[in-house]
Amino acid sequence: MRDIKEEVERANSLAVERMVEAEPFLIEVKEARYAITQLKDGVLTHAGPPITWGRVSGPLKGALIGAVLLEGWASEPREAERLLAKGEVELKPNNELGAVGPMAGVISPSMRVFVVKDAKSGRVAYSNINEGLGRTLRYGVYSDDVIERLRYLNGEFADALANALSVIHREKFGINLKNIMAQALHMGDELHNRLFAATSLFFREITPYIIEANDKTVASKALRFIDSNNHFFLNLAMAACKCMADAARNIEYSTVVVCIARNGTDVGLQVSGTGDAWFTAPAPTPRGLYFPGFSASDASPDIGDSTITETVGLGGCAMAASPAIVRFVGGSASSAIE
Amino acid sequence: MRDIKEEVERANSLAVERMVEAEPFLIEVKEARYAITQLKDGVLTHAGPPITWGRVSGPLKGALIGAVLLEGWASEPREAERLLAKGEVELKPNNELGAVGPMAGVISPSMRVFVVKDAKSGRVAYSNINEGLGRTLRYGVYSDDVIERLRYLNGEFADALANALSVIHREKFGINLKNIMAQALHMGDELHNRLFAATSLFFREITPYIIEANDKTVASKALRFIDSNNHFFLNLAMAACKCMADAARNIEYSTVVVCIARNGTDVGLQVSGTGDAWFTAPAPTPRGLYFPGFSASDASPDIGDSTITETVGLGGCAMAASPAIVRFVGGSASSAIE
Repeated sequence: MRDIKEEVERANSLAVERMVEAEPFLIEVKEARYAITQLKDGVLTHAGPPITWGRVSGPLKGALIGAVLLEGWASEPREAERLLAKGEVELKPNNELGAVGPMAGVISPSMRVFVVKDAKSGRVAYSNINEGLGRTLRYGVYSDDVIERLRYLNGEFADALANALSVIHREKFGINLKNIMAQALHMGDELHNRLFAATSLFFREITPYIIEANDKTVASKALRFIDSNNHFFLNLAMAACKCMADAARNIEYSTVVVCIARNGTDVGLQVSGTGDAWFTAPAPTPRGLYFPGFSASDASPDIGDSTITETVGLGGCAMAASPAIVRFVGGSASSAIE
Repeated sequence: MRDIKEEVERANSLAVERMVEAEPFLIEVKEARYAITQLKDGVLTHAGPPITWGRVSGPLKGALIGAVLLEGWASEPREAERLLAKGEVELKPNNELGAVGPMAGVISPSMRVFVVKDAKSGRVAYSNINEGLGRTLRYGVYSDDVIERLRYLNGEFADALANALSVIHREKFGINLKNIMAQALHMGDELHNRLFAATSLFFREITPYIIEANDKTVASKALRFIDSNNHFFLNLAMAACKCMADAARNIEYSTVVVCIARNGTDVGLQVSGTGDAWFTAPAPTPRGLYFPGFSASDASPDIGDSTITETVGLGGCAMAASPAIVRFVGGSASSAIE
């Protein structure tokens, strides 16, 4: 008779080994529709587990409206909202397409995505380009300045990076994200909210190639954008972690969590041994300080795929934590999150 | 009657305050002869306290020979050595000219120096350009490859940096080195042997200006050089610390150490209250591991002005340490170093 506890431990060992062995490299910056085949016209992605328009939170609503405007499927916000309400835009969770996006996490077909490839398995993962702090689509803002920045980032800026990667490919496989992440962890980054070192190291590595592959003014503007945004590396860290977490999927008996993500309404987990099943619970609203005149009642529940960074962090601790995770599977997600 | 202990404490408080208040900025990259008026043809600088050719250590000897060759005062090493032995080249300590250099620390008139200026007092300090690790002049190597790299660094490379600084001057005073150093200390650097973060932050800050002010191939080559050398920021940290330490000089009754430097033969200290006097002792030979076939008998005693970084570090602790420093002044330097 097989000992179930031993099976679980063996499966979890393998899951963690696969996460740790993955070697994510940034290899391309590509239009989302060509990288992610399911992301056709009329489809938008979002963070977290699946959701329908009626249950969508404020920030995600704003980001979806902005993406419809960016794509030109509507010419003004009310029209975009009507389109979404009528279900004429299909919503798909990033994580089901091999992608991740911070906060609202909306990716539309014409946006450019980072293509991150595991040099070991060939598995790929995707993320969009970080817009910087303040008024951005990922927080649900769709004003003209936000759309204009998105046009720059998904146009000239993405081209500059793609050109740099073409030059890099003459020398090497891509930019070794795991090297950067390992070094950055030693420099005070935790790779989710502190990305100062990782952004700096990425900047150093890509700079000569950006210069060599682009016009001087294009190169300078692109590098000034990266330099202005210490969260720039977040989306790369997320795609790298997605690549690592996905390596641990679908191992029979494994209780290792391979995805934690929030859509602003629900938080969802996926576990290695239970395939594509989502275990969901209401997303908690973070307790925090508010600007004058605002309170917790104005706040949105937690949102974003960025918890993929903690998912991989947890993966490393999964062996120690496995009894707790076993108790969790099939239970309440929110208690595990807390 | 005045209490001498109180006088010393008040003076040391002021010395530390002046060190801490200094705001060193990189403002220029200039030919040494124009930055440092005493550095004329026929003069070379070196690390540490004053020394004459007869007592010069192996590494410093090699670096002086290399500098004579670089300047074209001799066409081959033996001729350079004869010139130096005859006293036809005047040797001056960097620290007496407001300068600092790592290891041998030799600066010759045609070399370029970083000009670092205290935005508060207007005081300036200088350092040469870090050559990278391995075979370099500062370790006493004067082979053709070393001289060739020096020609690049003190030519095209220095021009690229100087051009970038001209563009920076349209926007701001210079590059705020104290900001970079403060951030880097939080990222694991100690700013003497670990300069990974500081070099990265400096790289980020200067990159757009290097691109905008230079030809694309020149910019790319210059940035690749900085990226290849995680010690690049050392000489900037040293010039910044020199600027800070010099701010604390010449305060009556102050026992704060304002300079610690080694020339490969002697270690020398200078103390705020005792002006330009050097307190010297034999430089210790570090205990370490050697390559196969080598032993401590092949090693040179300690060398370099880079201990200016610890001098400023000590300055911050000077108040606590002052009784020990009082006992030291006029005593044995080596016991204080140990």
